[in-house]
Amino acid sequence: MDKTEAVRAIEWRDDTLILLDQRKLPASETYIKCVSLDDVITGIKDMLVRGAPAIGIAAAYGCVIAASHRLSGSSENWQHLLSADFQRLAEARPTAVNLAWAVQRMQGVLESSNEEALYERLLQEAISIHQQDIAANHRMADLAMPCLASSAGEGAFPVLTHCNTGSLATGGFGTALGVIRRGCELGYIDQVFADETRPWLQGSRLTAWELKKDGLPVTLCADSAASWLLKEGRVRWVIVGADRIAANGDVANKIGTYNLAVSAKYHGVRFMVVAPFSTVDMAVSSGNDIEIEDRGSKELLEFGGQPIAPQGVETVNPVFDVTPASLIDVIVTERGIVSEPSMAKMQALAGSAS
Amino acid sequence: MDKTEAVRAIEWRDDTLILLDQRKLPASETYIKCVSLDDVITGIKDMLVRGAPAIGIAAAYGCVIAASHRLSGSSENWQHLLSADFQRLAEARPTAVNLAWAVQRMQGVLESSNEEALYERLLQEAISIHQQDIAANHRMADLAMPCLASSAGEGAFPVLTHCNTGSLATGGFGTALGVIRRGCELGYIDQVFADETRPWLQGSRLTAWELKKDGLPVTLCADSAASWLLKEGRVRWVIVGADRIAANGDVANKIGTYNLAVSAKYHGVRFMVVAPFSTVDMAVSSGNDIEIEDRGSKELLEFGGQPIAPQGVETVNPVFDVTPASLIDVIVTERGIVSEPSMAKMQALAGSAS
Repeated sequence: MDKTEAVRAIEWRDDTLILLDQRKLPASETYIKCVSLDDVITGIKDMLVRGAPAIGIAAAYGCVIAASHRLSGSSENWQHLLSADFQRLAEARPTAVNLAWAVQRMQGVLESSNEEALYERLLQEAISIHQQDIAANHRMADLAMPCLASSAGEGAFPVLTHCNTGSLATGGFGTALGVIRRGCELGYIDQVFADETRPWLQGSRLTAWELKKDGLPVTLCADSAASWLLKEGRVRWVIVGADRIAANGDVANKIGTYNLAVSAKYHGVRFMVVAPFSTVDMAVSSGNDIEIEDRGSKELLEFGGQPIAPQGVETVNPVFDVTPASLIDVIVTERGIVSEPSMAKMQALAGSAS
Repeated sequence: MDKTEAVRAIEWRDDTLILLDQRKLPASETYIKCVSLDDVITGIKDMLVRGAPAIGIAAAYGCVIAASHRLSGSSENWQHLLSADFQRLAEARPTAVNLAWAVQRMQGVLESSNEEALYERLLQEAISIHQQDIAANHRMADLAMPCLASSAGEGAFPVLTHCNTGSLATGGFGTALGVIRRGCELGYIDQVFADETRPWLQGSRLTAWELKKDGLPVTLCADSAASWLLKEGRVRWVIVGADRIAANGDVANKIGTYNLAVSAKYHGVRFMVVAPFSTVDMAVSSGNDIEIEDRGSKELLEFGGQPIAPQGVETVNPVFDVTPASLIDVIVTERGIVSEPSMAKMQALAGSAS
């Protein structure tokens, strides 16, 4: 584990998957042992684990657990049953791209292994998915440093981030938060503003918790205070993750990202997106083709079971928004960085060696 | 009471001040009877009543209650004691401009009345402060209608508002929300987006509750979703109140107002500020001279006693921000409206008959 990173959301220990229950943060730090397939499926469905890369990794270990049970069972039909187990895992949540991708990798191992080697090969594949995610995060952090260095002429500076893109959302280290960790470590960044990220409060509950635990200089603010900080010259870079990047460089990410990008442009503050290349969807030509999900009213109407708005009031609760490439200074992936993203530059990145 | 307005935060009935406890909304609609000076001071300090105009009105009735007690007492020194009571009321909260202003009006009556007429004259002054506030709100709504009419070429349109500026924040009807009520009534407005207004959630808890109760078409959204609605062309006007307006037309208002103004400018959405003329402070030449209060960390760290962020994390929690006049299309006061506000135009407004 990196010295600047004291928390892991996912661990494989003694043939058991251990998940940090992110629903309970920051009130309590509770770890849940998953010993059955259903434990893992429930953990994903109920958001003990969240963040696309983290969900994919949890599902890969879930495949290992399922295999352990089927292999020790007595059914002659075990391969078919295990394949169905994998399918159930892949369908635990519909929108997380990495979930289907990870299970597909595990299914490939299932189909190409004999019974004797299967468990060990599945476990190695899950560990590989986990390790590759962490490695991609470290690589992205390295690639982003020259951007930060170019802004550090007058010394260390503050940045602002949105949602949670750290150890809790990934295999470890983080995407945008990985860049921020490395930037702090190298002395480029001296303050990290985390906005609350309503309505789920990933910023308050997860990012502030994670950075504070690691001793990094985090300051929490309301979402709507971010522009005021930008106006006051208190932020040099806005650094965020992505849920899906279109072929033209448009970025779908947590609701509120677009607002920050507009404000950053208005104030001359630089805007960086950090995401693994698996987030890039070259089949989608622009952000206009990305469907924006509305997650319903509950998270705007209640908090912790208490009503915070009149019951039955209409709501609009888009989960994501799309930031056009024109508002983005740089996209960082483990394959390389793209400044002032465009269709041609994204195509060049996609064509480069992985 | 206006037919489109089913709620009053402040009522004087049977020699008693009745306050709607705004801290408990929307979970419960509780009215508190204030029968002593301390009841009123506590009501203001603890934010049973909030909103600068509403606080001023509550304080005026508090002066009446104080006078009733002093006049029925036996002290020969009652005038001096009553004056001290007024002073305690004026100091219940430091920042609400209307509080000091209202108590000053009541003090003037105290100093110019004889004992026999005093109670009745104080009561009439309090009722007058209350009624004048409501009348100013209606006048502002009337004055704003031509602005809305000019945008209604293609039929009714949606607007977005921030914080709470309605019956709950004023003597009744509201400032920005008064304009919105009238606009709905006249068929200009067919949808009202209310943003949550973190961290106090005045939008969710108060504005959504108030508009829903009145049967007006309110839709709640997260603060950071507002820009996305603007981008999608779903908002034609942003309409907000003000806490203080500088001589050059810069507007201090609830945190998040500035963010909306930047986004409105970027998207070509019009931006209206509605506030009584008492909000204009010609002694302050620009928004740069308005001190921005930070309200501390508690409201970012807890909700309803539950932690929503790690305890002890640093926070930045500015209560207000300043929107420069250049981002404002029109300021509406009961004295008249100012389009594209400037120092010269504000001076002309200040010089006009009140």
